[in-house]
Amino acid sequence: MEAQIAVAKIRKYATSNSGDTVEVVERPQGGVSVVLADGQSSGRGAKWISTLVVRKVISLLADGVRDGAAARAASDSLYTERGGKVSATLNIVSVDMQTRTLLITRNNPTSAVLADYDEIQTLDENSKPVGLYRDTRPVINEVPLKPGLTAIVYTDGLIHAGKRYGDPMDVEACIKTLLDNEDPSPQYLADSLLDHALKLDENRPVDDISVVVLRVSRLSGDDVRRMSVRLPLGF
Amino acid sequence: MEAQIAVAKIRKYATSNSGDTVEVVERPQGGVSVVLADGQSSGRGAKWISTLVVRKVISLLADGVRDGAAARAASDSLYTERGGKVSATLNIVSVDMQTRTLLITRNNPTSAVLADYDEIQTLDENSKPVGLYRDTRPVINEVPLKPGLTAIVYTDGLIHAGKRYGDPMDVEACIKTLLDNEDPSPQYLADSLLDHALKLDENRPVDDISVVVLRVSRLSGDDVRRMSVRLPLGF
Repeated sequence: MEAQIAVAKIRKYATSNSGDTVEVVERPQGGVSVVLADGQSSGRGAKWISTLVVRKVISLLADGVRDGAAARAASDSLYTERGGKVSATLNIVSVDMQTRTLLITRNNPTSAVLADYDEIQTLDENSKPVGLYRDTRPVINEVPLKPGLTAIVYTDGLIHAGKRYGDPMDVEACIKTLLDNEDPSPQYLADSLLDHALKLDENRPVDDISVVVLRVSRLSGDDVRRMSVRLPLGF
Repeated sequence: MEAQIAVAKIRKYATSNSGDTVEVVERPQGGVSVVLADGQSSGRGAKWISTLVVRKVISLLADGVRDGAAARAASDSLYTERGGKVSATLNIVSVDMQTRTLLITRNNPTSAVLADYDEIQTLDENSKPVGLYRDTRPVINEVPLKPGLTAIVYTDGLIHAGKRYGDPMDVEACIKTLLDNEDPSPQYLADSLLDHALKLDENRPVDDISVVVLRVSRLSGDDVRRMSVRLPLGF
């Protein structure tokens, strides 16, 4: 089997900084984690918050701390730093090679999606952002790794897309349509979701939008690990 | 303009762990850094060393520490931890948005390549790995960002490919040929270099091999940041 991860990310129109942060980290016992945080408000302040949360989580995961404990620690850390006055949403998607499971960890009122081929499950159990209260716990979904699994997490900019123009995005319907394609690549899924949101926002996103897709499939081809990044420089 | 990064990575034949570690981190003042370390020997011990070095560097870069200082700190840190008995090679490739420069930082006797379109410069100034001595300094090359720049760094597995069979890889000649193509993508460059090495090693790599390519080009298309990762799971 192989895991493929794709991220697509754009900042709110006319801001210089996205308040969303995404980082990928190798797990010490094998596997990989993607960590996504959305800091309260937008711009520089929001970026500071989401960076703090993601770095805390990444550093704990790299030490072998389990996802749930890392999320709780990030929450306590932000709570301590900012006296419970500032929040961030947090999602962790992990491929854990020790347990051979896919984990989706949510501290985010915005739902996430877990699909088995084109069969979609919405992960919308009540979940609080990190930083506001002591001992905030994440909601965790864990399933054995198998081909056809797709996890899709996103910041609330995606579900708010189009609202200003009275045509809000139906994220799940959109994902359903995309998964009906023959073996869609994670980058295609992430790009298509973001494209659709941008169209509804008339190419001026009302909020930062980030989409993370992780897909498990049968091994196709070689044993090479690959990563690619594209970064518009803005000048 | 935009920056594109690609990584291709494979472990030594018949080992379960690569001793090479690569991570990408967002820079707090804008831009991105790729950090590559190759731990002495191979397998678990080497992985432990390269992870230590990369995590130290990543964490300092994320705090806004400059590349050269981060490399020196990682060297001192490994020296202190292991009493100068253990080494690792370290490369950092950064797009720094504050200085609008591309930086290549080397603590690695293996050369690296910096190209301006198809004009190649070999970066082979004498450079020591980290961890063996106090106050080991990196060799740094810094050039203003402009379209056509390509930085290619790799671990010594690449230059040793084929040696066992008396047909060693000529990395520079290979890069030259690849850059003669019309606007080659970083993933194409990284994959082609690794493929060529694998062929010379008859698909049983004698050492861990990692290739990192960073290319600066004119902005093509939208303002979306993208990342993708492919991870073979080995079962």
